[in-house]
Amino acid sequence: MSRFFSSKYDKLIPYTPGEQPKDMEYVKLNTNESPFPPTPKAREYAKEMAESLQLYSDPELRELMKIAAEHFGVEKDEILFTNGSDEILNFAFMAFCDEKHPVVFPDITYGFYPVFADINNISYEKIPLREDFTINTEDYIGINKTIVIANPNAPTGIALSVAEIEKIVSSNPQSVVVIDEAYVEFGGESVIPLIHKYDNLLVTRTFSKSCSMAGARLGFGIGCKALIQDLNTIKYSTNPYNVNRMTMAAGIGTIEDYAYVTDNCRKIAVTRAWAVQQLKEIGFTMTDSVANFIFAKHSQADGKRLYLMLKEKGVLVRHFDTPRLKDYLRITVGSEEQMQILIDTLKNILEEIL
Amino acid sequence: MSRFFSSKYDKLIPYTPGEQPKDMEYVKLNTNESPFPPTPKAREYAKEMAESLQLYSDPELRELMKIAAEHFGVEKDEILFTNGSDEILNFAFMAFCDEKHPVVFPDITYGFYPVFADINNISYEKIPLREDFTINTEDYIGINKTIVIANPNAPTGIALSVAEIEKIVSSNPQSVVVIDEAYVEFGGESVIPLIHKYDNLLVTRTFSKSCSMAGARLGFGIGCKALIQDLNTIKYSTNPYNVNRMTMAAGIGTIEDYAYVTDNCRKIAVTRAWAVQQLKEIGFTMTDSVANFIFAKHSQADGKRLYLMLKEKGVLVRHFDTPRLKDYLRITVGSEEQMQILIDTLKNILEEIL
Repeated sequence: MSRFFSSKYDKLIPYTPGEQPKDMEYVKLNTNESPFPPTPKAREYAKEMAESLQLYSDPELRELMKIAAEHFGVEKDEILFTNGSDEILNFAFMAFCDEKHPVVFPDITYGFYPVFADINNISYEKIPLREDFTINTEDYIGINKTIVIANPNAPTGIALSVAEIEKIVSSNPQSVVVIDEAYVEFGGESVIPLIHKYDNLLVTRTFSKSCSMAGARLGFGIGCKALIQDLNTIKYSTNPYNVNRMTMAAGIGTIEDYAYVTDNCRKIAVTRAWAVQQLKEIGFTMTDSVANFIFAKHSQADGKRLYLMLKEKGVLVRHFDTPRLKDYLRITVGSEEQMQILIDTLKNILEEIL
Repeated sequence: MSRFFSSKYDKLIPYTPGEQPKDMEYVKLNTNESPFPPTPKAREYAKEMAESLQLYSDPELRELMKIAAEHFGVEKDEILFTNGSDEILNFAFMAFCDEKHPVVFPDITYGFYPVFADINNISYEKIPLREDFTINTEDYIGINKTIVIANPNAPTGIALSVAEIEKIVSSNPQSVVVIDEAYVEFGGESVIPLIHKYDNLLVTRTFSKSCSMAGARLGFGIGCKALIQDLNTIKYSTNPYNVNRMTMAAGIGTIEDYAYVTDNCRKIAVTRAWAVQQLKEIGFTMTDSVANFIFAKHSQADGKRLYLMLKEKGVLVRHFDTPRLKDYLRITVGSEEQMQILIDTLKNILEEIL
């Protein structure tokens, strides 16, 4: 820290992204990336755009906005694109939270939420999940605070139903409810249609997981026009050209080819079901994940030890060293081949240590 | 505005990017884009990367950092890349300004500085340029406030010398001085070497102009390790994967081919000198710009009228409708062909109206 760093960040602890070690080739199941490349059109359009990078991207992203609005069944001014969904989430914390509007989220969820609150100097409250890691929706009824819920939740993969979310949104008409649907396409149900009924609902999404575009950085928010207008005010006051030309083009190509995305999500769900079965057979229990990851603990083996031994053997998964999560591994659902390697490696490890 | 928008932004007026009308094909000289495409390697590497977008970008951008540090003569931990230079500038406002550390910048400069101050709730003071649009360095000596200076300045193109900037930096040892070198490579002199001498100097740069990468979004900051560490704290608390894979690759390709960049900058300087001469001959006076734009006013014709008539005839330039700037046009230095069209069109307009 320099002697010039503003004291307002004295207690700020930045987010820690999943590790990306370069010492060897890993089977990488630690950052919820897709095992499939982006759609052929996404790749083709991005490459075409690489020829004209001397020109700024359209700050309004008009072409992408048009096709995306159509695809998601909303109006053009009900959608806003950002440099990954972390940016739209940060914009939402900036726009809809302040001293008078503190924010709440589950105690176990995407680890970035408290960081967004801290960097924006917003006080927050963590509402504990039940013992079984489910959200008790009653905790969020009529609480009159800005609410952020990942659905499905991370790192549990457990989803709320549309009806449950609607109860939360409708019972808090004076507060914005942000539903982070980063993982919804692998088995959850989107609440996007509800934005036409509730002016306090913001849905955030990302092209990173289902659309295989983690490395392109494209996220978005969908909400009523007034909410989107506020988020645009933040965008045009921080980084108007936030989405580059290649990524915009890849986004258009992805939407034009969306059947490929849907098919990939279906494949992931099939592989997830198979891997869950395999893991059960070797002594793991897990949450009922509908996301592209599995959240699993072993009846006899320590979570951290399993994580470290897997890493040593070339398989990266994610381990969170906190009291409620330390027994668990969060395992991205990769390709069938990758999951077979994971299972085989776990079998070897368990034979070795039990 | 929604009823949920935080009142802390009541007075915020977002930045207005240069217009991008789609109604016809324009000779586009309004956003300081390069007339040249990015280097062949930049394009090639970006395209290769489009094949693996399912993987996250390296948040540390290690490969790019390594080659860039070598190129700019600094250590790897003295450099930080961002999603365009607007992002590094916003990070600097966040990190090094607060209630106790207000910020100052010239009254005429990049129009985003007051917006960065406003969105971060930082009070600022605008120091007037002299009548001839030059910066009086005496105004910045020992003022004990965070200082932001674009060098060369925008939209004037006038540069301070390294010695003048060093005087400002050395006389404010308790404050960070940000030198925004977006346009330095077209004829200014960089102060990057001074970062080894002063721990309060942050230099910001962009690949947008000289490197023909406006549409890829790649900016960076160079400063002592402690300053860069602070900016990294901001990055990892807002958007750790802020630079996408394709842009990172394009950045690497650009640096590997830097002679192409230097050559383009030289060509722009030659075209600028030619265009300045032509404009003088038809009654314009202008500042001594060393940037990739010309800041010109006509002795008899109104600035806004010229801007509107140029636009009608298919030539876009930028006009700022403020008291001190309204007589002027900011004209990007494009290709020789584009500048010939500009001059011819201006001649026609002047014949028509004078």
